[in-house]
Amino acid sequence: MSTAPDTLAGFRARLADLTSPDPAAVEAAQARNAQLTKPPAALGRLEDLAIWYAGWRGTDRPRIDRPQVVIFAGNHGVAARGVSAFPAEVTAQMVANFQHGGAAINQLSRSFGATMTVHPLDLDRPTEDFTHASAMSEDECCAALAAGWSAVDPQADLLVTGEMGIGNTTAAAAIAHALYGGVPMDWVGRGTGVDDAGLALKAQVIGDGVARHAGGDGLATLARLGGREIAAMAGAILRARVERIPVILDGFICCSAAACLHAMNPAALDHCVAGHVSAEAAHPALLERLGLDPLLSLGLRLGEGSGAALAIAVLQGAVACQSGMATFAEAGVSDG
Amino acid sequence: MSTAPDTLAGFRARLADLTSPDPAAVEAAQARNAQLTKPPAALGRLEDLAIWYAGWRGTDRPRIDRPQVVIFAGNHGVAARGVSAFPAEVTAQMVANFQHGGAAINQLSRSFGATMTVHPLDLDRPTEDFTHASAMSEDECCAALAAGWSAVDPQADLLVTGEMGIGNTTAAAAIAHALYGGVPMDWVGRGTGVDDAGLALKAQVIGDGVARHAGGDGLATLARLGGREIAAMAGAILRARVERIPVILDGFICCSAAACLHAMNPAALDHCVAGHVSAEAAHPALLERLGLDPLLSLGLRLGEGSGAALAIAVLQGAVACQSGMATFAEAGVSDG
Repeated sequence: MSTAPDTLAGFRARLADLTSPDPAAVEAAQARNAQLTKPPAALGRLEDLAIWYAGWRGTDRPRIDRPQVVIFAGNHGVAARGVSAFPAEVTAQMVANFQHGGAAINQLSRSFGATMTVHPLDLDRPTEDFTHASAMSEDECCAALAAGWSAVDPQADLLVTGEMGIGNTTAAAAIAHALYGGVPMDWVGRGTGVDDAGLALKAQVIGDGVARHAGGDGLATLARLGGREIAAMAGAILRARVERIPVILDGFICCSAAACLHAMNPAALDHCVAGHVSAEAAHPALLERLGLDPLLSLGLRLGEGSGAALAIAVLQGAVACQSGMATFAEAGVSDG
Repeated sequence: MSTAPDTLAGFRARLADLTSPDPAAVEAAQARNAQLTKPPAALGRLEDLAIWYAGWRGTDRPRIDRPQVVIFAGNHGVAARGVSAFPAEVTAQMVANFQHGGAAINQLSRSFGATMTVHPLDLDRPTEDFTHASAMSEDECCAALAAGWSAVDPQADLLVTGEMGIGNTTAAAAIAHALYGGVPMDWVGRGTGVDDAGLALKAQVIGDGVARHAGGDGLATLARLGGREIAAMAGAILRARVERIPVILDGFICCSAAACLHAMNPAALDHCVAGHVSAEAAHPALLERLGLDPLLSLGLRLGEGSGAALAIAVLQGAVACQSGMATFAEAGVSDG
């Protein structure tokens, strides 16, 4: 069951045949929730989250014991076009920073008890500049999807997928433009901090890329316009679905990976929540296309899985209440 | 320094002479933040929070080691008017639930490593119905303020104040209406779940109370319209200011306590952040009057400090990044 497919066709087949939450666990969790010592619905979204989580984990009193953060890094041919405020060598430098524990995502993972692994993907071999050629071949995309798939610990009970890759807001914007149309400027943002001229350049680059590569399905779009770290996040999100591990999505780039799955099957993200809405300009529009309402809105625009890692705490709180609170009967409290 | 005042005049004097954050620590924290391995401002509000926290704690690399949650409970004469969906005995029943670890706030405090204490305040002696008399005498109000003051652990490094008290959204709405004007319906909400008739009754009760008691300063309003748990939260928030302990405010009732301090001195809440905006209808308007932008918006309306306790995690994440991340120089990362 949990071997990675070795062709894009194999990934397509997986996306056509998805796992579902356990309806009995959902019903039992709802019944338990209704008896807990609080007014009905007084915990707001925490209640919905807990019941959703319970369904995927198959129990009305779930626990979060093994949250996992997986970070993928890739380099982008399109970075040579000057679409980022930072030079491409920063990708590898930040991978070393992740490995040495110095990045934001290290601190956030530790704060909320998550394991964290970082997976650099052929950093010395950037994808092709998608304005000239497909960013990845089908085989390269498949290998990246498989790297993401294999990075997931099947014993994890909550997954965050994050990324690092200079130039990858441009790739993510190109994916969104290819999948959802509009004009390039609808989907670009300042990434790590480009100026107005940089923004205009990004829009032009994205327009050129989409003009060349439009028309494929979600996985074809991923290969043609994406990057290895984006494909790896998609592979990890899909593997989590197979293992019934709930996923917290991060910002714009993570959601562009999720969008490629969603374009293949609108149910593909039913095991996912949006951890936050980032300050990247097009993230709200992308979340809307995915039908996701973010848990947090704190102006983050770092990537690395940072916003999603912060949202681990929200899930932890939700599940702790669902599984740990006393019922009215247990506590001898009058229920209204 | 840290003895509770024994008169309202003593509390008024404290409110006229407030501690300030350490400007050198703020400057050092800003300088450190600018060198961390991330694009400028990419952690959004987490950066502002960390620098604010650093200022109050007097160090550019603070830690959160001892978060404290204090819960106060009180009973309200006005509850006899039928303003709540729950009977008044639920206050004491829920106190027992807090003491036995069964409430939402127990689970949330444990999730984020906070100590939690619960302080029932003369539950067998409700305040007066404020439509007929002052809810509390000055001495009673002073005693409740002092109970809150004394509940704060001076060694804590982050404080959440929460409450339980059947009828207390009515008291909180009366305080807001008295301080900010408008019409009663501007400030009422459904609390634990009253219907439309209950809502109209609350508005009438609030209008009657404010007509009788309007015109006093923040502490006079607290005594005339508040409750013991509301006064205790105000006392705890003020004590935290004396000790330079940052505070996360909870929902509508907690913010009504904070509003009484803010009415005395507009700088009184500079050591506070709003943990969340609740689903209680008037909480957004109250936050706006206090100039506070909430960290979370998850539809909670439970009280108990629950929304603020969840926001402990946001502060923990912010402070962990500020204090734990590597600088560009330490990590050998090119800074754009």
